Amino acid sequence: MNQQLTRRIGLFWAVFCLYNGAMAQPPRGPLVVSPQVNADKTVTFRYQAPQAKAVELSAQFEKASVPMTKDAQGIWSATVGPVKPDIYPYNFRVDGISVMDPANVAFFPNERFKASLVDVPGDTPLIHALRDVPHGSINYEYYPSMERTTGSVVVYTPPGYDQNQAKKYPVYYLISGTTDTEETFFKVGKTNLILDNLIAEGKAKPMIIVMPYGNIAARVSEQTGGQKPADPTVRDGADAVKRANDFTTDLVSNVIPYVEKNYRAIANRENRAIGGFSRGGGQTLRAAFSNMDKFAWVCAYSSYLSPQEMERSYPTIVSNAGNTNKQLKLLWVSVGSDDFLYKGTVEFMDYLKAKKVNYKSLITGGGHTWMNVKTYVAETTSLLFNP
Amino acid sequence: MNQQLTRRIGLFWAVFCLYNGAMAQPPRGPLVVSPQVNADKTVTFRYQAPQAKAVELSAQFEKASVPMTKDAQGIWSATVGPVKPDIYPYNFRVDGISVMDPANVAFFPNERFKASLVDVPGDTPLIHALRDVPHGSINYEYYPSMERTTGSVVVYTPPGYDQNQAKKYPVYYLISGTTDTEETFFKVGKTNLILDNLIAEGKAKPMIIVMPYGNIAARVSEQTGGQKPADPTVRDGADAVKRANDFTTDLVSNVIPYVEKNYRAIANRENRAIGGFSRGGGQTLRAAFSNMDKFAWVCAYSSYLSPQEMERSYPTIVSNAGNTNKQLKLLWVSVGSDDFLYKGTVEFMDYLKAKKVNYKSLITGGGHTWMNVKTYVAETTSLLFNP
Repeated sequence: MNQQLTRRIGLFWAVFCLYNGAMAQPPRGPLVVSPQVNADKTVTFRYQAPQAKAVELSAQFEKASVPMTKDAQGIWSATVGPVKPDIYPYNFRVDGISVMDPANVAFFPNERFKASLVDVPGDTPLIHALRDVPHGSINYEYYPSMERTTGSVVVYTPPGYDQNQAKKYPVYYLISGTTDTEETFFKVGKTNLILDNLIAEGKAKPMIIVMPYGNIAARVSEQTGGQKPADPTVRDGADAVKRANDFTTDLVSNVIPYVEKNYRAIANRENRAIGGFSRGGGQTLRAAFSNMDKFAWVCAYSSYLSPQEMERSYPTIVSNAGNTNKQLKLLWVSVGSDDFLYKGTVEFMDYLKAKKVNYKSLITGGGHTWMNVKTYVAETTSLLFNP
Repeated sequence: MNQQLTRRIGLFWAVFCLYNGAMAQPPRGPLVVSPQVNADKTVTFRYQAPQAKAVELSAQFEKASVPMTKDAQGIWSATVGPVKPDIYPYNFRVDGISVMDPANVAFFPNERFKASLVDVPGDTPLIHALRDVPHGSINYEYYPSMERTTGSVVVYTPPGYDQNQAKKYPVYYLISGTTDTEETFFKVGKTNLILDNLIAEGKAKPMIIVMPYGNIAARVSEQTGGQKPADPTVRDGADAVKRANDFTTDLVSNVIPYVEKNYRAIANRENRAIGGFSRGGGQTLRAAFSNMDKFAWVCAYSSYLSPQEMERSYPTIVSNAGNTNKQLKLLWVSVGSDDFLYKGTVEFMDYLKAKKVNYKSLITGGGHTWMNVKTYVAETTSLLFNP
């Protein structure tokens, strides 16, 4: 990044040019292959750091960090597995410092942590695999948002969207989790590939999927020059609710009108779904329960609202369950049995049951992970917009 | 990423839930604000690493690394500048390990190094700033590529593209540099925002910009299960030329047909431009000089072909300069005076001049950087497709 690196690049470059007399690739950074998924589904990770004292692999398919060993060239490596086919976040701990894998382009968009992604393919291609089927498109859009700011949103359009200019589509609004960004359902959740595959198999209806950025407060603060909260421990419950409600306001007042103006969306509640993961699941429930005229399909992945919060903020949802059941074509709640939100989510399910509010649920293995989110996306998008 | 982190998240979460009775944000990772651009255009960088012995800032606006100092909480910081307004790559060196800024979402997509981006805004918004103007859209697409693989390409469509279904547009094919990806012109080059702003000012014609992935060999190898080159020093000149020619073949046989089928592109040479940075500039010159029937506008940013390579591979371009000049509406070559390719690029300009091949050139300050690329994008897109 600085002169030292520039000189190093320059030196390599000069050597290459002598050989090539042509444009070649100046090497930069560690020249290692990582991750390397082997035929037996073991995975080899490598990290070049001749000076480091200890390098560990921290991967979501391992219960604990895995020590890596250094070779004579200063390249640390570890081979682990066989690993169950899926896409997993991982990073390296280099003398205690968490770093992404420099040799890997696939990354986890997040506000706070940095992780890379390793894709262990199945013998039969998994539901999120890039297959030889018609592909939809991912679109990055700007929309006029709150308080003089511009919001960014990622939009999936299904295969054939551009070809068939007469057809209109239902829309699924899908909100990612705490510290995730509007890119996470695309880059980590592979939502576009899951839909491409389900649509090709006739298992999901062609739909538009809109992925907004959940952390409105941070964006408004950044663009208007306000202070970001340096210490989030000062956030209290009231503030969390206010931020969730700000998100709902932005979604309903800005995102949905933008989408329905610029995309061929069917603009009624029967053709609008909302879902989300973790904090995005909480935002989903709040947005849906306070806008029953806008959404008929509601999916909470690994999240819930407490009975107290339901009674306080959305009393008619449970007091008039008959009406809720008539209005909602789907209320979905899912969670992994190892999720740290498992207990609260199951309590939410029990509460809905006691109140006679209809819902569908799925309890999987695993924790609060994007491996589970991919499963939930595939399961729910197969249900959405079916009569 | 592992149990330890999961437990930490779980603990924070439990505390939050006690206060909130609602979905809140479980904090993860360092809770610092970084980068913080101050009113006087100094910038404060922060990195939380209580155990680290030395942390440095490595930023492309600094000639050398800047030592950071640790506070009582274990947060390292440095305030630098005032910094000339622009967007700069940077990272931290933590006990010698290069890491991205965990607190910053803005990143530099690259195959080999990991860097974050800091945006120092101008008092008057710069040409790449997000302004309150009509915005185009960025589209991520898959296309059928070489050897049973699927390619990915990023496509900018200008403001109004979706509204005016009758209008067709010229297309600029724009290839990023060595180890960059198809995302780099979007995420680092801000090509979409530059075009939005130039179009709003009436300085650029509305156009489609197609940003392919330059490193065909790596993708084919990855998708077909072949071996990636673990040691790029084995690459010789012939291999570099072969890879450049493979890129041209994929561009002409697969990318262009895909774009012209799926976008409202004007499909003739007068409405096709090609350009690129660094290796992408070399690929640009090769693709253009071997396909004079396909491109009338050619832009090499910080790159060149040697006179020997021109004589060997593209002799008619220089031997029949009159014809070349008649065919090319623009041949653009630009470079920074501190670029390690400055000398070769100026030799290329001199060679073209000696051979009476018309070209436009721009020599800026600065080096082989994306700060310069943004300038070149703004300068060239203002020229493209004007009679």
